[in-house]
Amino acid sequence: MTVTDTPEGARAAYRQGAVVPTSGHASGFTQANLVMLPREWAWDMLLFGQRNPQPVPLLDVTEPGSAHTELAPGADLRTDLPLYRVWREGELVEEVPEISGLWREDLVSFLIGCSFSFERALLDAGVPVRNIEQGRNVAMFRTNRQCRPAGRLSGELVVSMRPIPAALVPTAVQVTGRMPAVHGAPVHVGDPTSLGIADLGAPDFGEPIQAQGGDVPVFWACGVTPQAALMASKPPFAITHAPGHMFVTDVPDAVYRQP
Amino acid sequence: MTVTDTPEGARAAYRQGAVVPTSGHASGFTQANLVMLPREWAWDMLLFGQRNPQPVPLLDVTEPGSAHTELAPGADLRTDLPLYRVWREGELVEEVPEISGLWREDLVSFLIGCSFSFERALLDAGVPVRNIEQGRNVAMFRTNRQCRPAGRLSGELVVSMRPIPAALVPTAVQVTGRMPAVHGAPVHVGDPTSLGIADLGAPDFGEPIQAQGGDVPVFWACGVTPQAALMASKPPFAITHAPGHMFVTDVPDAVYRQP
Repeated sequence: MTVTDTPEGARAAYRQGAVVPTSGHASGFTQANLVMLPREWAWDMLLFGQRNPQPVPLLDVTEPGSAHTELAPGADLRTDLPLYRVWREGELVEEVPEISGLWREDLVSFLIGCSFSFERALLDAGVPVRNIEQGRNVAMFRTNRQCRPAGRLSGELVVSMRPIPAALVPTAVQVTGRMPAVHGAPVHVGDPTSLGIADLGAPDFGEPIQAQGGDVPVFWACGVTPQAALMASKPPFAITHAPGHMFVTDVPDAVYRQP
Repeated sequence: MTVTDTPEGARAAYRQGAVVPTSGHASGFTQANLVMLPREWAWDMLLFGQRNPQPVPLLDVTEPGSAHTELAPGADLRTDLPLYRVWREGELVEEVPEISGLWREDLVSFLIGCSFSFERALLDAGVPVRNIEQGRNVAMFRTNRQCRPAGRLSGELVVSMRPIPAALVPTAVQVTGRMPAVHGAPVHVGDPTSLGIADLGAPDFGEPIQAQGGDVPVFWACGVTPQAALMASKPPFAITHAPGHMFVTDVPDAVYRQP
C-alpha cells in the first residue's frame, strides 16, 4: 500500500509537489481530463461537449470560480493534479505543477472522461492492452474527421489507437460500448488511411505502440480532442491537465459501466 | 396514410395551422420537448441539462438565433410545432400556434428527449402502457427531490407515472434503461409517498391513470422538469412547447435505443 493507492492519497501527493503520470494510481477510480476556460468561452466548450459526446464526455462542469467538483468533494482543482498546461491564444505557454497564481473568479472547469477507465474494463474481459504491456503512453492521432463545431470552437477528432487481436475486436467493441461516459465504443476499426492516418508508427501525441501478429488497429475518440480545439480556435486563456497527468476522482470506474 | 404519418407531413400540417397533440403522429420517429431561452440564460439551462441528464436529456442545442436543428434539417422551430407556451418572469402568459413575431436573434433552442419514444419500446416488449390504453395524457407529479442546481436554475424533479404489472416491472426497467436519451430507466418503483406524492389520483400535470389489479406505480424522470425550473427560477423570457404538442423530428426512435 502506497500513498497513491487511494484517491485522497494520490491527490495529496500531487498537491505536495509530486509531478508524475497518474496511470496506475488509485486503481479502480475514474481519472478525468481537465479543461478550464473563462466563463466568456465556457458556453462554447459546454456546447462542444454536448455536440461531441464521444470525444468530450462531460463528467462534471463547475460553477464559475469554483475549484470544487462533485466527483471528489474534498479536492481542489487548482492544486490536486500533478501537472497543468497553460494556454494563451491557442499556444501552449508553460507547464506548471499548480495554478493557484493563475486562478480567476470567472474560470469554469470541465472534467472529461478518460480511456484509463475502459482499459481496465478491457483487461477484465481478457483483452490485452498493448500500451500497458509495453509501458508506454497510448498512441494518439489527428484525423480527417471534423467535430461538430460549437460557437467559436471547432477542430478535428483526435483518436487513440490500440492494437487488438482480431478475434477479440468484437469483445473490445462491446465492453467499451457499455461505457459511453469514458468515450464508449470505438469510432473506427482497421484501415487507418480512411481516417487520414498515414503512418501508425508516427503518432501525433503519445508514443508508438507495437502491434503483435494478428492485431487490428482499433480507434477510440480521445480526450485530447478538446486540446486540439483550443489550438485551432485560440481562446485568449485556458488551462488543461498535462497529458497523462490526470485528475484522480473519488468515483469508482464501475459507476460508468452500464449493465 | 395521412399527412401526419411522416415527420415532414406532420410539421407541414402544424405550420399550416393544425393545433393538435402530436401523440401517434409520425409513428416511429422521435418527438422532443422544446425550451427556448435568451443566450444570457442559455448557459444555465445547458448546465442544468448536463447535471440532470435523466429529466433533461439534451438531444440538440442550437446556436443563438438559429431556428434550425440537426434533428430535422428542413424544419423551422418557430412555426413547426402545433402549440407553444410563452413565459415571462416564470409565469405562463400565453399559448400560441407559432412564435415568429416573438423571435429574437439571441434565442437558443434546447431539444429534449420525450417519453413517447420509450412507450413504443415498452409496447414492443409486451409491456402495457395504461395511458395509451385509456387514451389519456400520462400522469405527472412534482416530487420532493430537488434537481442539481445550475447557475440561476433550480427546481424539483417532475416524474411521469405509469402503472406496470408487477411481473413486467423488471422488463420495463431494462427496456427503458437502454434508452438514456429519452429519460432512461425509472427513478423510483412503488411507494409514491417517499417521493412526496400523496395521491396518485391527483396528478400535478396531465391526467389520472387507472391502475389495473396487480399493477405497481413506476416513476420516470419527466421532460416537464425544465418547465418547473422556469417557474421556480423566473427567467425574464422563455418559450416552450405546450404539453403534448411536441417537436416531431426526422430521427427514428431506434437511433436512441442502445443494443
